[in-house]
Amino acid sequence: MPEPELAKVKKVAVAYSGGLDSALCLKLLFDRYGAEEVLPVTINVGLDQQELDECRSKAELLGVKWTMQEAEDEFANEFITKAIQANASYEGYPMGTSMTRQLIARRVALFALENGCDAICEGSTGKGNDQFRMHNVFSIFAPDLTVVLPVRDFNFTRAEEKELSKQYGIPYREGIGDDRNMWSRSIGSGEVDNLKMRIAKEVYLWWVPPEDAPNQPTKVSMEFKNGIPVNCNGKTSLADMIHYLNKVGGANSIGKMDMFEDGMMGLKSREAYECPAATIILKLHKDLEQLCLTKEEVLFKPIVDAKWAELTYSAAWFHPLKEDLDAFISRSQRFVNGKYEVELIKGNIDITSRESATGLFDPQIRSLATKGFDQRDAGPAVKIHGIPYKILGKRGL
Amino acid sequence: MPEPELAKVKKVAVAYSGGLDSALCLKLLFDRYGAEEVLPVTINVGLDQQELDECRSKAELLGVKWTMQEAEDEFANEFITKAIQANASYEGYPMGTSMTRQLIARRVALFALENGCDAICEGSTGKGNDQFRMHNVFSIFAPDLTVVLPVRDFNFTRAEEKELSKQYGIPYREGIGDDRNMWSRSIGSGEVDNLKMRIAKEVYLWWVPPEDAPNQPTKVSMEFKNGIPVNCNGKTSLADMIHYLNKVGGANSIGKMDMFEDGMMGLKSREAYECPAATIILKLHKDLEQLCLTKEEVLFKPIVDAKWAELTYSAAWFHPLKEDLDAFISRSQRFVNGKYEVELIKGNIDITSRESATGLFDPQIRSLATKGFDQRDAGPAVKIHGIPYKILGKRGL
Amino acid sequence: MPEPELAKVKKVAVAYSGGLDSALCLKLLFDRYGAEEVLPVTINVGLDQQELDECRSKAELLGVKWTMQEAEDEFANEFITKAIQANASYEGYPMGTSMTRQLIARRVALFALENGCDAICEGSTGKGNDQFRMHNVFSIFAPDLTVVLPVRDFNFTRAEEKELSKQYGIPYREGIGDDRNMWSRSIGSGEVDNLKMRIAKEVYLWWVPPEDAPNQPTKVSMEFKNGIPVNCNGKTSLADMIHYLNKVGGANSIGKMDMFEDGMMGLKSREAYECPAATIILKLHKDLEQLCLTKEEVLFKPIVDAKWAELTYSAAWFHPLKEDLDAFISRSQRFVNGKYEVELIKGNIDITSRESATGLFDPQIRSLATKGFDQRDAGPAVKIHGIPYKILGKRGL
Amino acid sequence: MPEPELAKVKKVAVAYSGGLDSALCLKLLFDRYGAEEVLPVTINVGLDQQELDECRSKAELLGVKWTMQEAEDEFANEFITKAIQANASYEGYPMGTSMTRQLIARRVALFALENGCDAICEGSTGKGNDQFRMHNVFSIFAPDLTVVLPVRDFNFTRAEEKELSKQYGIPYREGIGDDRNMWSRSIGSGEVDNLKMRIAKEVYLWWVPPEDAPNQPTKVSMEFKNGIPVNCNGKTSLADMIHYLNKVGGANSIGKMDMFEDGMMGLKSREAYECPAATIILKLHKDLEQLCLTKEEVLFKPIVDAKWAELTYSAAWFHPLKEDLDAFISRSQRFVNGKYEVELIKGNIDITSRESATGLFDPQIRSLATKGFDQRDAGPAVKIHGIPYKILGKRGL
Repeated sequence: MPEPELAKVKKVAVAYSGGLDSALCLKLLFDRYGAEEVLPVTINVGLDQQELDECRSKAELLGVKWTMQEAEDEFANEFITKAIQANASYEGYPMGTSMTRQLIARRVALFALENGCDAICEGSTGKGNDQFRMHNVFSIFAPDLTVVLPVRDFNFTRAEEKELSKQYGIPYREGIGDDRNMWSRSIGSGEVDNLKMRIAKEVYLWWVPPEDAPNQPTKVSMEFKNGIPVNCNGKTSLADMIHYLNKVGGANSIGKMDMFEDGMMGLKSREAYECPAATIILKLHKDLEQLCLTKEEVLFKPIVDAKWAELTYSAAWFHPLKEDLDAFISRSQRFVNGKYEVELIKGNIDITSRESATGLFDPQIRSLATKGFDQRDAGPAVKIHGIPYKILGKRGL
Repeated sequence: MPEPELAKVKKVAVAYSGGLDSALCLKLLFDRYGAEEVLPVTINVGLDQQELDECRSKAELLGVKWTMQEAEDEFANEFITKAIQANASYEGYPMGTSMTRQLIARRVALFALENGCDAICEGSTGKGNDQFRMHNVFSIFAPDLTVVLPVRDFNFTRAEEKELSKQYGIPYREGIGDDRNMWSRSIGSGEVDNLKMRIAKEVYLWWVPPEDAPNQPTKVSMEFKNGIPVNCNGKTSLADMIHYLNKVGGANSIGKMDMFEDGMMGLKSREAYECPAATIILKLHKDLEQLCLTKEEVLFKPIVDAKWAELTYSAAWFHPLKEDLDAFISRSQRFVNGKYEVELIKGNIDITSRESATGLFDPQIRSLATKGFDQRDAGPAVKIHGIPYKILGKRGL
Repeated sequence: MPEPELAKVKKVAVAYSGGLDSALCLKLLFDRYGAEEVLPVTINVGLDQQELDECRSKAELLGVKWTMQEAEDEFANEFITKAIQANASYEGYPMGTSMTRQLIARRVALFALENGCDAICEGSTGKGNDQFRMHNVFSIFAPDLTVVLPVRDFNFTRAEEKELSKQYGIPYREGIGDDRNMWSRSIGSGEVDNLKMRIAKEVYLWWVPPEDAPNQPTKVSMEFKNGIPVNCNGKTSLADMIHYLNKVGGANSIGKMDMFEDGMMGLKSREAYECPAATIILKLHKDLEQLCLTKEEVLFKPIVDAKWAELTYSAAWFHPLKEDLDAFISRSQRFVNGKYEVELIKGNIDITSRESATGLFDPQIRSLATKGFDQRDAGPAVKIHGIPYKILGKRGL
Repeated sequence: MPEPELAKVKKVAVAYSGGLDSALCLKLLFDRYGAEEVLPVTINVGLDQQELDECRSKAELLGVKWTMQEAEDEFANEFITKAIQANASYEGYPMGTSMTRQLIARRVALFALENGCDAICEGSTGKGNDQFRMHNVFSIFAPDLTVVLPVRDFNFTRAEEKELSKQYGIPYREGIGDDRNMWSRSIGSGEVDNLKMRIAKEVYLWWVPPEDAPNQPTKVSMEFKNGIPVNCNGKTSLADMIHYLNKVGGANSIGKMDMFEDGMMGLKSREAYECPAATIILKLHKDLEQLCLTKEEVLFKPIVDAKWAELTYSAAWFHPLKEDLDAFISRSQRFVNGKYEVELIKGNIDITSRESATGLFDPQIRSLATKGFDQRDAGPAVKIHGIPYKILGKRGL
């Protein structure tokens, strides 16, 4: 491999998850980029204790000081709340990773500045979206720091990374790669290319196939205020609710995705996700919107939501347009209040009861069973509505 | 009840389904509108033999000549094909009735003209959407005929209609009303107002609750050409495929809907539908689009599809904008070709195999496992993509 | 004329401009609706002293107590500011009347409630948009009051109204009707039907044909803050600026419109407007947005603005969706700051100088004359941007 | 200057306009890229005889064989027609250069393939949009050829290019650069950075300031069929009409633009254009659409047109979505037929007469002067339209 032209760095903050990519980066920074000091920081949005231990032990192995910052509440309360209000869906995907990458990048940028670093390093490849997400956020919050992506600089394949890690003595896990956070777990991004192949059920952490799930429903209640869940079976912190719903939703076969996704570089990939909590919450939120928003909002908001998703996915979380959209969305949620009771069974989310004091469903007026308004008024209304059609009939269609 | 001001009619074509509304109309036309001749015509888009027999016998009872026209193939091949290509969804509803009403209205208008009628009668109430759908289409195809809606003219409630039918000796069925066609069965439109009440499973014709469905998957294959199903388990007529999928999909607990819907007059109603075939076909079509359309189409077409749905729902099937949208949609489908194998189980539609010769998923280029493009090119691309963010960082967000 | 079925009213607030329609209403309320007390209120958004005097004298003539409320500042500061930020254009029309009608309706509704009225009366015909604008706002702010529209109830033509006014001894002006407010003057709405006829220059109040305007430019400066004009040639109240620009803009042949407009009932009319101030302000605002908004905002905001216009035109000023859009728009304007110098001449608005501390035009980076970024980075960026086109080339277009 | 890493080429087709960039490229291909044969081809979309002579003489000077292909009719009939129907406007710019670049690239790609070239060269810099436009089209039509951009490879400034041309003995013109085609002339793209500076009137070729234009109107007639001009003052070829209107429009001070534009890399530039013919044609086309399209089309088509413009500007002329949009647009124009008489004076385009047999303006129905429909029908229609507002009033806004 010809030596690429590499940036020169001294003191480097590293966005560090302990995985194959970022652990290898620690070593390469010293070996190839001439770093004098390397500061891995783990922004925790969903690692379990075993993974955190691996973070620590690999950092120790490589002789660098490891920092960990908890960020699950920030993720839940500043990112996921907005995602729920926006019915977050990029071509179907609820965008967990899209959001955490940008959250992490801001934290790492600030960490780098606080620690007097001249550079930031992260482990993205040059094939995916994450490089954009990290880069754009670094550009905003630490525009003067050098950014290095060793995996991309060396044009590594995963096989090459593993080989090199072996040489360096850095342990890594075998098996399909994943990115886990409470909102959506991304499984083997870009690794599942055979379209005739079903993804094996073993790779799912939460999701159980319908055959294996119980044939009796599990009851869940959920209350929303301003479009955000405030209570789910007694839990009142959003992070707690999501963890709970991933468990119980997955056990009831909810939240598997296997889809085609258009990446930021215009290339399609086949992606597998599991996201039981997101699936349940987003379904109920949408249903509640159809009860509490005006018809005009129900028909227009999808355009706003779709642009929101496109920006969130495409590395523009902190973009002015994204914030304009947030202003629209936030304002639209002021009456999105209500209570749900649902049954989860075999992949189905069945709503058994709804309640809302701010809904716009008014059976008194609408129902055929009553005389809420005089139907005869509709005659002239229909006639006037039809006048343009008479003109079209005359003109030709 | 004060006598409303009624139109005067002589020879009247009646859009006639044999149900409570339209059967009562036959009688009222003679009694209250002074009709001399009444010609009920049934445009069959989904009645079964028993219902057709009722149509005939009620017409005989009232002494009028009944005509029946088969229209399932027109419905499948000229309406549903477009609906599939447009991912038909008005707030979730696949719009079976919205389409059949407009198909029927055109047929009835032409029937009336052919038979030298001076008026058309139909049984819509003044509370719903169908009055608009019939009226607009009459306005285009038979603009000079008088249109009468007795139920609306007399501001009848369903209870009053039943009472009057009893007086007239016209039989009617008890129980929840429905409108059935192969694309979606509408159940008790507007009758289910208690939000805390679940709709009873007995009212569903095809759909079986997950608890009662088999715990083994049913295999279904489907092939699409230009976005339209051309083969499903050996069936090659679209109408046949849909009938088949309603049966097998419903048996596997697929296709129940219970939703809020914004009607044409801006009022919300709670609507229950069952539509197993539509649910399966629309899911696979959408998945195939994400494989075969460009990213730009995947992101823009939903705006076109949403407007298509709004128009189709809102009595504008023959509107010029609807046809402009059709032109867009039709053109977009030229590469939407592919084969699916799926398993239906307990409400889940699980894709087990996909195949397409015109897809845009190119694993050779995209996959991390290969060197399809040099990752290092992404470095400058990401840098350039990030320049506006540097400017924003400087300016302030 | 057969007597229509009329509502019964006792104490009636009347939206009163002193014109043909509303003056006639005062009389009809007593004569035909059985009113005991009639309270005309003029919400002044642009009448001159002579017109106000006419209001008073006609009220005295008919023996009713006249109230006048100044509303120009409310119009400027709560309506026009939003219109500017939204680049107000419904098919080209800046919507002065659309807004004033809704402002007036709210004021009249509150006036009626304060004065213990049981009814509100307004002079709209049944052919136009104003009946919707007034009605919807009454529905929100005074839902329990009876609303009467005598001109519509009696299906009057203008000729019939004039004839009746003559009989009643109520004076009226001859000539083309208009609706005047500072944002746009509507001239003879619906009266100019001959498409081969040019509208006579005499009907314009402010606008002078280019032939007759000076051949030397008039200089105007304007400063915007958050998308709103804060200074124009030393004037700092928005109402003052607009009055000034109507005069000087019109004198320089700016602001004539002659267009087709799609009314709320789906019918087209030919409309003539003059709106010099709106034309100048909206042009500069748009130009400033293109300097200060991000590309993504410049491309997306038109969709928001268009929906804003549709709602504002269509009687939905107080609608929740309109307020959601306002939230978006308001947020988008936080950096829309800058100073303009322009020359007005013969219908042209020529920008001679721009200045903005919050613009996003960064010549240092972009200019060909410098080396702000290394062009060579663009090579890989272009290559990556082109990969989907290579795939399309292979697949076929 | 360090030597960049350059592609190796043998026989190269060159997109050649005879200007500073492309003439220099001819030389550099031999000197720096090792080319054995260089084939400059000029796709003529607007060069005059003098410029064509310069093309020839420079080619002779450098000893290469020059080819010229006329393309004005292709430009008019296959590109501009679509632009007119789409109301072509990217942030105000009618996109002449955006289109010609893609037309040229297709022609050059085909020329290269026909002549057995292994490479294509073009003179774009790495700062602008043209590199994307050429590259994407090459990717589709000649995906296997090497593409070289010498100016970008060497990161040249214009000053450096001039210096080098001098050394090579290649003549070039001083003064502001431009790109000329019949649809829009782009003046000094990116060179006018001082926002307080007005662009000098001398740089305009067609446009005359209002002060210097005649104070009497020039009469122009224009007839459209399916949204495309078919006759203008007796001319019937679109190219002839456009050349004529550039002359007469410019002489009457029409068609100057000075605007901010968001380039493909997300950077803003200040751009100056002159485009008299485009300004006139687009204004009349839009006016005619408002007469002949339905309200629903008038309100929705701008979304289609805007996406069309974004794609056309952004190097996606041959993209599937662009063709889907073309299908919509083409279908929408089937009734856009009519005749205009206008007066051009001092920058104003004043419509004096309109005529259309397929318009939807129906004064008989709409006019206040007649009784085309009974206004009293509007009462119930307005009431029904207002019901959702009553519900909102009750719920709270």
